[in-house]
Amino acid sequence: MADEAAVRAQAEAVRRLKQDKADPDEIAKEVAKLLEMKAQLGGDEGKHKFVLKTPKGTRDYSPKQMAIRERVFNAIITCFKRHGAEVIDTPVFELKETLTGKYGEDSKLIYDLKDQGGELLSLRYDLTVPFARYLAMNKITNIKRYHIAKVYRRDNPAMTRGRYREFYQCDFDIAGQFDPMIPDAECLKIVHEILSDLQLGDFLVKVNDRRILDGMFAVCGVPDSKFRTICSSVDKLDKMPWEEVRSEMVGEKGLSPEAADRIGEYVQLHGGLDLIERLLQDPKLSQNKLAKEGLGDMKLLFEYLTLFGITGKISFDLSLARGLDYYTGVIFEAVLLQQENDHVEESVSVGSVAGGGRYDGLVGMFDPKGRKVPCVGVSIGIERIFSILEQRVEASEEKIRTTETQVLVASAQKKLLEERLKLIAELWDAGIKAEVLYKKNPKLLNQLQYCEETGIPLVAIVGEQELKDGVVKLRDVATREEVNVRRESLVEEIRMRTSR
Amino acid sequence: MADEAAVRAQAEAVRRLKQDKADPDEIAKEVAKLLEMKAQLGGDEGKHKFVLKTPKGTRDYSPKQMAIRERVFNAIITCFKRHGAEVIDTPVFELKETLTGKYGEDSKLIYDLKDQGGELLSLRYDLTVPFARYLAMNKITNIKRYHIAKVYRRDNPAMTRGRYREFYQCDFDIAGQFDPMIPDAECLKIVHEILSDLQLGDFLVKVNDRRILDGMFAVCGVPDSKFRTICSSVDKLDKMPWEEVRSEMVGEKGLSPEAADRIGEYVQLHGGLDLIERLLQDPKLSQNKLAKEGLGDMKLLFEYLTLFGITGKISFDLSLARGLDYYTGVIFEAVLLQQENDHVEESVSVGSVAGGGRYDGLVGMFDPKGRKVPCVGVSIGIERIFSILEQRVEASEEKIRTTETQVLVASAQKKLLEERLKLIAELWDAGIKAEVLYKKNPKLLNQLQYCEETGIPLVAIVGEQELKDGVVKLRDVATREEVNVRRESLVEEIRMRTSR
Repeated sequence: MADEAAVRAQAEAVRRLKQDKADPDEIAKEVAKLLEMKAQLGGDEGKHKFVLKTPKGTRDYSPKQMAIRERVFNAIITCFKRHGAEVIDTPVFELKETLTGKYGEDSKLIYDLKDQGGELLSLRYDLTVPFARYLAMNKITNIKRYHIAKVYRRDNPAMTRGRYREFYQCDFDIAGQFDPMIPDAECLKIVHEILSDLQLGDFLVKVNDRRILDGMFAVCGVPDSKFRTICSSVDKLDKMPWEEVRSEMVGEKGLSPEAADRIGEYVQLHGGLDLIERLLQDPKLSQNKLAKEGLGDMKLLFEYLTLFGITGKISFDLSLARGLDYYTGVIFEAVLLQQENDHVEESVSVGSVAGGGRYDGLVGMFDPKGRKVPCVGVSIGIERIFSILEQRVEASEEKIRTTETQVLVASAQKKLLEERLKLIAELWDAGIKAEVLYKKNPKLLNQLQYCEETGIPLVAIVGEQELKDGVVKLRDVATREEVNVRRESLVEEIRMRTSR
Repeated sequence: MADEAAVRAQAEAVRRLKQDKADPDEIAKEVAKLLEMKAQLGGDEGKHKFVLKTPKGTRDYSPKQMAIRERVFNAIITCFKRHGAEVIDTPVFELKETLTGKYGEDSKLIYDLKDQGGELLSLRYDLTVPFARYLAMNKITNIKRYHIAKVYRRDNPAMTRGRYREFYQCDFDIAGQFDPMIPDAECLKIVHEILSDLQLGDFLVKVNDRRILDGMFAVCGVPDSKFRTICSSVDKLDKMPWEEVRSEMVGEKGLSPEAADRIGEYVQLHGGLDLIERLLQDPKLSQNKLAKEGLGDMKLLFEYLTLFGITGKISFDLSLARGLDYYTGVIFEAVLLQQENDHVEESVSVGSVAGGGRYDGLVGMFDPKGRKVPCVGVSIGIERIFSILEQRVEASEEKIRTTETQVLVASAQKKLLEERLKLIAELWDAGIKAEVLYKKNPKLLNQLQYCEETGIPLVAIVGEQELKDGVVKLRDVATREEVNVRRESLVEEIRMRTSR
């Protein structure tokens, strides 16, 4: 429980951060802490203040946000289907032991459920481990599937950048024993198609291979036992300068300074086929079996990417490591390149929007006999993409419709509720998207205003004269033109006008 | 931990149940218990046996099941959009206190998350309470929205009947202050449209009103303090005979036998406008303010349902109670009526597939000033519907495609992988749904077989001669007809042939 002095101190901390123009996420975090302390303080004073909020790191989606989200999902699903993928679904929680030992240092971020008797459960952390469990459980050795669902990580949220504790992943994976690098190349083609389709601006897909990394660690003199932990240090290179990563390796992780410096030389390298060729000639790397295999496959991959015509946005980058334990071969990550603002020339990375790689051992961890099913896959980070598009819509003041209603059934006079209900049932039964105001005697002006506000293009107006004549007055909201349409032709007329 | 004797005893219990031809769910439950004991026993023996399963009461959806599920969702979403609904989404978990005190006796079925530091969280139990929280939090007083998402209940699963611990709800709700019974009637129209669309067979929508129930309890002599608990006894009438419900009321809940008998007379009644009129004349009920209000509104509702042309499948039923605490007015529940089997004449209810009602007080429970937002809504129970359709598909041996691929890019000779990849990239970039086998030199026969198995209608075959001639051989999988198509016309030709 907080006391008032602590709240004041926290408020002071927030003020200081703001003065210093600190990182907005940092400020947001401290403000959240402050609000939490204040809420607790309220409790202390005896007034129970009900906290009306979503859990930390989560959010609701309003209809407008959903409209944007559905646009993004459509683009992604269309692409996955274009590549012949099936779709599966798995439960939001798994047995706790299913997730154990799959995520390395990140395991501490898993949400566990309370033990209420019965099985111990955890919320899924990604869609890859449940996919591997699904394959092993159903003895599937061959599938191309996508899966779009929410995953859960008890991470520090940075919501302004689209980093949440509950977030969607859109995964596409290919499982099966195939000729090398063909499915891997398709995954990269998919990333390229989706990021191009969504028009998020310029992007770059960094590619590396766990075998190249491991070979590199070996020839640099990293002891076998330190491969994984040094790998997770390298993984921080997108957020930290080399000097800091180096001092983590040497200081925290006990690597020799010489080994670290040798790594430092490699991880600065990035390029294309030329770099791959050069490293295949590298006197040390070329002597390492793993590195040689990885580089050979990387060359093949780039040949396929050339056939796909997408090498322009792909960079072989030795600093790419990816945090997760389960990768065994190719790994990749897509970043958006954005001008910091219009006046700055250099483009900066705004963080990863897609990632993936090959994980040939994961399914075997679930199979009772350890039978392996090679897999490669890609995960699209929808939340960040969504944040960008949402900000863009806000800035453009584009008006987004949140319903698809074609016609409002209205009346010009009183006492026509029954006639409105009869007409709208006819329209619904004919498949027309129609609404009616839930009032007995609404004013015509209010009904027309409702159409303007919600973007309904047509109004079907019933009045006493029209009822006598067997017609309905159809009004075009935009042009304000009105025509009488015979009741039996109304459905056809609405369909025709709204299909354009 | 189990010992072997206990396992043997449990196995014997299962055998007995099977001999007695007991309820399949009962047997399944006991078998699950047996397997769990066996697994524990394995642990005792020192061999760690990894349990490869989804958590109790949950399941995966295979591509084929997903194809059926998406059909059902499409029908439901199309209906919701036809009625002008927007869509929202909320997090899968809520603050624990958000759910507290909303579900009466069912609260014990809520899944809590483990306290890992920070807020106490629970998985959502339905979509109605999160919706009310959303309205109060965003001060929304007027919205028509749908929400399709999974909810969680630690109930006894009966999976063969489509009762799961993780299951989808498809909710449509109308919030706002409107003239009476117009939105309520629309909710019933929606249930009618969806159940008709899905062609699940005959159905009946039972309707009642909490005010009529409460009025009935009052005039039967139920003390105010027992209204809710007696209401939850009445709610069991769809699963238990009256005699059992009566003895629960009298025995467990301490109601006087006279009061119970008076209730017994009312809850047998069901009918239409005629019954409403009769009860409006009932000497006792008509003296009760609440019951009179409820009956008046019920009459209005039936008038609107008559205008919608759907009274044929609606039954005013005084035995309908609905378990949840938050309902304040109209309540309803749709049941499928199915022949037990072809030889039995009488149709029996196979359980609820949709339900809902009016809850005018729920939003006010979240508003700091208690401001009310009247709401009425309907929830479609997708899992039971899905089970029925799945069984129907199994029985019919209907072949369901799980992908939408239009064309397989194939080759008749070896060493044409590069040409296949070049061609498929052209097709993808033109928006054609295309696949290629991930093999360097696949046999033509295998490629054609893949099309047969997965239902791909076309094959685009590249060969050396075709490459020289600037054509692609396009094969129709069903008719086996082949024609040469100029490469530049291929996309157009595929589009034409697959649009039919």
